[in-house]
Amino acid sequence: MPDFLDTTDADFETRFRALLTAKREDSPDVDDTVGAIIAHVREKGDAALVELTKKFDRLELSAGRLALSRAEVDAEIAKVAPEDRAALDRAAERIRAYHARQMPPDAEWTDPEGATLGWRWTPVEAAGLYVPGGLASYPSSVLMNAIPAKVAGVERLAICVPTPDGVINPLVMYAARTAGVDEIYRVGGAQAIAALAYGTETIAPVDKITGPGNAYVAAAKRRVFGRVGIDMIAGPSEILVIADGTSDPDWIALDLMSQAEHDESAQSILVTTDAAFGRQVADAVEARLGTLERRAIAGASWRDFGAVITVRDLDEAAALSDRIAPEHLELCVAEPRPLAARIRHAGAIFLGHWTPEAIGDYVGGPNHVLPTARSARFSSGLSVMDFLKRTTLAELTPEALAAIGPAAERLAAAESLEAHGLSVAARRETLNRSE
Amino acid sequence: MPDFLDTTDADFETRFRALLTAKREDSPDVDDTVGAIIAHVREKGDAALVELTKKFDRLELSAGRLALSRAEVDAEIAKVAPEDRAALDRAAERIRAYHARQMPPDAEWTDPEGATLGWRWTPVEAAGLYVPGGLASYPSSVLMNAIPAKVAGVERLAICVPTPDGVINPLVMYAARTAGVDEIYRVGGAQAIAALAYGTETIAPVDKITGPGNAYVAAAKRRVFGRVGIDMIAGPSEILVIADGTSDPDWIALDLMSQAEHDESAQSILVTTDAAFGRQVADAVEARLGTLERRAIAGASWRDFGAVITVRDLDEAAALSDRIAPEHLELCVAEPRPLAARIRHAGAIFLGHWTPEAIGDYVGGPNHVLPTARSARFSSGLSVMDFLKRTTLAELTPEALAAIGPAAERLAAAESLEAHGLSVAARRETLNRSE
Repeated sequence: MPDFLDTTDADFETRFRALLTAKREDSPDVDDTVGAIIAHVREKGDAALVELTKKFDRLELSAGRLALSRAEVDAEIAKVAPEDRAALDRAAERIRAYHARQMPPDAEWTDPEGATLGWRWTPVEAAGLYVPGGLASYPSSVLMNAIPAKVAGVERLAICVPTPDGVINPLVMYAARTAGVDEIYRVGGAQAIAALAYGTETIAPVDKITGPGNAYVAAAKRRVFGRVGIDMIAGPSEILVIADGTSDPDWIALDLMSQAEHDESAQSILVTTDAAFGRQVADAVEARLGTLERRAIAGASWRDFGAVITVRDLDEAAALSDRIAPEHLELCVAEPRPLAARIRHAGAIFLGHWTPEAIGDYVGGPNHVLPTARSARFSSGLSVMDFLKRTTLAELTPEALAAIGPAAERLAAAESLEAHGLSVAARRETLNRSE
Repeated sequence: MPDFLDTTDADFETRFRALLTAKREDSPDVDDTVGAIIAHVREKGDAALVELTKKFDRLELSAGRLALSRAEVDAEIAKVAPEDRAALDRAAERIRAYHARQMPPDAEWTDPEGATLGWRWTPVEAAGLYVPGGLASYPSSVLMNAIPAKVAGVERLAICVPTPDGVINPLVMYAARTAGVDEIYRVGGAQAIAALAYGTETIAPVDKITGPGNAYVAAAKRRVFGRVGIDMIAGPSEILVIADGTSDPDWIALDLMSQAEHDESAQSILVTTDAAFGRQVADAVEARLGTLERRAIAGASWRDFGAVITVRDLDEAAALSDRIAPEHLELCVAEPRPLAARIRHAGAIFLGHWTPEAIGDYVGGPNHVLPTARSARFSSGLSVMDFLKRTTLAELTPEALAAIGPAAERLAAAESLEAHGLSVAARRETLNRSE
């Protein structure tokens, strides 16, 4: 059974803090191993990729077969059922439409002093997307990473996906094709991240790497950060459901289980104003755990990290939610809008009874790559912004330099940066002479 | 003398690559030391800060004196000359006006299926700004970090600034007051970053840490990344000037020296279509190096990392610039607009003869915290966005769920995530029953 808490209990604060700080994931210290793999790929290039793929994925390749050919991808795509294609097309179309609206505008204006100021957004040239192999190889993640990159205008988008024992996921190939991915490599692990960051004979280096991965992939991304840009290092998934008891307890149970089934380290929390409803949901979870395919995983997550918290009112629910800063927040209440307005820290909010979080995983439109482990306090989900960068622009007229230059000279002097001041003063003197 | 290159030389590509990959900074490996400092602060709190401040800054404090009192700040501010105040006020006002325009809009719309989608931006609650002590304690950096935070709506903004031997920089205090900083602590180094990330009895933890610092500060920021957000780890400063020979060579020399005087690891590069002009600039640099206060630093930077590159035309200049992806790019040409339009990767562009880069350091308005070490390929300068995060929103009507739900169920099945599909299906079944 999960934890049952009530804000009216004397020990609530202690137990809630324990819930907040519970360590849900053992991160094995793979940093030295990863460092050695990266060094090996930098030194030996393709040969290292071939060697490591044989070792870790039990797959014999030559350098020429690191990339999947167009014909190979076609052959995989041919295996995809029409209904799966249609569902993925629908998802891609909705994700594209949502992300197209995120494109930020350039700006330029001239201020009263005569300074023309502004900024301009441009896409990164090349991006690499890591896609895990095996069970966690999700076509939906390919869409969620690749579509924002292509909407942003990334010219070259490469995917690295391990194919242990040579097994390829056809729907992942179809998702890559649909999203406009340009290159696909059957390479995984830290070696894939090293290849994307530093390049090999076959894989040209990229500027930005995104996508989920295991501890080795995460450690490699941390190590190459700075040489290339990376997205957030994702932790186990989380959901917080705030419910007022006006929905079917079984719906809420399924929403909680849809996180719990991801991973034994996932966390599902229900916050409710109705203690009896909380018990009904817990009972519904137990019933569902009797039959769910992934009941071992979902059950362990719910037992170890699940919680049902009874609160006095929705204000208290909003305050607790902000302390948790959940990745996913469902507002299963009769009036979700005023409650949403009170929330400050959440990766994604799902409003009302008809918006289960799973909609957001696939076809809602917003990105499903979201900040975990309380990082919604300071970071956002993946977006087109992750594949764009801003260049600031400034152009002064001689009059503008005359107007604001002296303040720059004064501050340069205060900071003992003489050449800074002189670079302004030399121009101003020319102006003075020409008057 | 700096390197002289010409794109028509046979060995140009080799020498240009060497310039691109020159290692300009020895990063001492301080990671273990920093790890120990962070652990010490987490364990002992204020007592560790007092102990480490005595050790590193030769300053005896008690826990009660870690924060500067309002009266202490007032006393420091009283020492600031009226002309310095006026210059800093001018800078603050212009920086605020520029950054106010960066506030991104929220969005919400309803699509044809009946899904109401959108996003909402909210500020991080608390931010910490690191300000180096001693010579590199720049009031302008306080403005450039603190003003975007306050424009974004950060409620609590704390500064940590070491005061070696108790010496406080009055203009830094004035800049902090002007920018609306709420708390000032006389603590520096990795211990300051640890205190901001984890909190002590006196210093409440923050959600985001920005600001420059030495190798210890940088290593500490890397370590606390994930618990809090951080800005980019800044490398030594760089400038690239593209000049067509239509300006005074002395102006360009001073612009190059205004980067070189920062740091022996700084890099100043001139790219010009006019070889004779390139030599005139190099001569002007030598002349200025005879008298500049910081000639030892500027001279070493210019000698070790400076370069003058002659190109065939401005197209070639733009292409080389994009390979360098400079932090600062000056376009000292007769027609800067068409050239700016060809540039894809640069932190900040300064257009025309009357916009020396030093204007951007102080009073232009755009931020002077910019991506270094070629990271303008994938990242942007500091902005209000660094202190905001986006929450995505989705609200489906029953009709919208009926329309797009089946595609989600199909994809959930393809990914073997049964509860995901059931959470949609259970709601759809209710709809079907009620029809």
